Amino acid sequence: MSGVSEAERLARVVLSRVSEPGEAGVLQMVGELGAERALTTLAGDEEIPGLESDLGRLVAGVDPGAELERARRQGIRFVVPGDEEWPAGLDDLAHVDSLQGRGGVPVGLWVSGPVALAEVDRPEAPGVAIVGSRSCSTYGASVARELAADVARHGSVVVSGAAAGIDQAAHRGAIAVGGTTVAVLACGADRVYPAAHRDLIGHIRRTGAVVSETPPGGAPHRIRFLGRNRLIAALCSGTVLVEAAVRSGALNTANWTDRLSRPLMGVPGPVTSICSQGVHQQIRDGAAVLVSGGPDVLEMVGLSGDHLVEAPRDPPQPRDGLDRRQQRVLEAVPLGRPVGLDSVATAAGMKTLEVTRCLLRLADLGFVERRDTGWVLGAQGRI
Amino acid sequence: MSGVSEAERLARVVLSRVSEPGEAGVLQMVGELGAERALTTLAGDEEIPGLESDLGRLVAGVDPGAELERARRQGIRFVVPGDEEWPAGLDDLAHVDSLQGRGGVPVGLWVSGPVALAEVDRPEAPGVAIVGSRSCSTYGASVARELAADVARHGSVVVSGAAAGIDQAAHRGAIAVGGTTVAVLACGADRVYPAAHRDLIGHIRRTGAVVSETPPGGAPHRIRFLGRNRLIAALCSGTVLVEAAVRSGALNTANWTDRLSRPLMGVPGPVTSICSQGVHQQIRDGAAVLVSGGPDVLEMVGLSGDHLVEAPRDPPQPRDGLDRRQQRVLEAVPLGRPVGLDSVATAAGMKTLEVTRCLLRLADLGFVERRDTGWVLGAQGRI
Repeated sequence: MSGVSEAERLARVVLSRVSEPGEAGVLQMVGELGAERALTTLAGDEEIPGLESDLGRLVAGVDPGAELERARRQGIRFVVPGDEEWPAGLDDLAHVDSLQGRGGVPVGLWVSGPVALAEVDRPEAPGVAIVGSRSCSTYGASVARELAADVARHGSVVVSGAAAGIDQAAHRGAIAVGGTTVAVLACGADRVYPAAHRDLIGHIRRTGAVVSETPPGGAPHRIRFLGRNRLIAALCSGTVLVEAAVRSGALNTANWTDRLSRPLMGVPGPVTSICSQGVHQQIRDGAAVLVSGGPDVLEMVGLSGDHLVEAPRDPPQPRDGLDRRQQRVLEAVPLGRPVGLDSVATAAGMKTLEVTRCLLRLADLGFVERRDTGWVLGAQGRI
Repeated sequence: MSGVSEAERLARVVLSRVSEPGEAGVLQMVGELGAERALTTLAGDEEIPGLESDLGRLVAGVDPGAELERARRQGIRFVVPGDEEWPAGLDDLAHVDSLQGRGGVPVGLWVSGPVALAEVDRPEAPGVAIVGSRSCSTYGASVARELAADVARHGSVVVSGAAAGIDQAAHRGAIAVGGTTVAVLACGADRVYPAAHRDLIGHIRRTGAVVSETPPGGAPHRIRFLGRNRLIAALCSGTVLVEAAVRSGALNTANWTDRLSRPLMGVPGPVTSICSQGVHQQIRDGAAVLVSGGPDVLEMVGLSGDHLVEAPRDPPQPRDGLDRRQQRVLEAVPLGRPVGLDSVATAAGMKTLEVTRCLLRLADLGFVERRDTGWVLGAQGRI
């Protein structure tokens, strides 16, 4: 079931084919003009700077129906805005500024696997992105695996980029506990990158979902990783950065998470480890919140937080916790003008040191307040 | 040179002898009544709860002049508020609530060593407390040593508690680079605790300062560590927590730093290490700022921060950075009512995709803004 017209869907297939994934200019035009009009406008423009070939000729060369059929035979579907499976969280990309020329809501996503994209991020089980450096430490890989396992055990989907290092550890951690994981690739959803992850990506394709903005057959160009990272962030309720050096690409995903105003979390590590420097910087600058494990992450994306809320108790009567001597001293402190220690001691008929101790305790509890000129009743004391 | 009367000083010696260090009640009385009157009042009170012996008899048994002379022969001086050597930062303790019965400005500090207390925390070289667990990891000890060395190299004094673990590593780090370090003890300044640190404490006594609120000869009772921790925090511009388990005593020093509204810093570590859990909690809760090394610490206490301030530059003209095409598009966006993409493209006489790309870049820079109904000039564009 989908409210998307066939013409609209086919226009999106063509746009996906002829434009670079995540090309902010094109996606902005689609957002403003709609896919069909954007396509006509683009094809009508001559000599477009930044595109190598004549776009009109390119567009004419695409048979969108055949594209969809070919993808279908590869087990790949094309999900577009308006489809039931469309993940609503991606629409937020329309409202954030572009980054290095990338940005905007994708014209569509090529998806392979049994998990519906709309199910990745649900209120009762928020999707969690776990990302980090390709060259990670054994500590980082182990933490990513544990975190992913914890998150997956709670029914949340773990989203990552199927790269070496932290990404693969996150996917494997979710898989190890029978959880669901989704890989967002920079190459076509039919391809495998890196090649060493053929089995991993194959497993995710059979049990979770492999997602790409790049049409089937597309190569993992460098620029495509930047556009891909925004999708990882936008598919989830929050992103965990496990390890990242100061210039790590994983910080790009962190940046997108921040732009989307979703929780960015960082796992600390030894300050002697280069792999943790980028994460520490994000925590230090207040961009990322420090998380130590699964429970922290689940609380940040609002999952365990609901469970952890303490049952409301009967409101305690403020004076209930005071002992007899403290109550006596409290009675001896006037409501109005501040009075000295001696005066309180005389009024209470108690020894000065004992009165002083009681006053300090009463001050801690908010019953009395110290002023420069003496003691007065505090907020709690006036009740 | 000191503005303190001899009677006041001697009253403080007696108070130091007959009351428990950091006893908030006594110190509050001294703050309000002055040392002499507080002593008379205390000695006049009979059967004081919480004091084992009759205070009047105790007070009569103290010969403050002889106490000072005996301390002097041990190389220990008694520094009181009003003395030139008095560290001004300790006066802030008058304005913070007590914690577990401890609090307040000490009646005086017993000091052994060549460094004047007033020199520990200076604007040009802020004192830095480096504290942490006694049972630390080798990672923690190594980080504490490096941090202390960095801080000491910049001329700052490293203050700690001479305990096993992080404390001793911090002292040794400062000493290793020929820096100055100060140890605040829970026992008398003439004593050594723990016994294994006889050489370390001896070295600090000869080159820095060994400080205690407990009079000479006093034993390191458990309760005295709580009072001692507030002095470590109050002597410095900031406290670095290197390693601390969730219930570590070092968190008490952290708490005092927070109460004093001075920067509390935390060094992260592996989330798998129990030694770092308390630190991570403080960072996560926003009580401590994450620091990765000496430069971070120096910046937090305001030292390198001054050096790091960038030289002011000529204010750039907003449009200077725009290329010809971007300027043309900017000219085509009206000041008033939002207009659509097509309208801007027509006005600029440029192709739609190119115009869109320019608009996105202009939006990033604040020259234009996207509204639901089209494009308008942004804050930068109206200049």
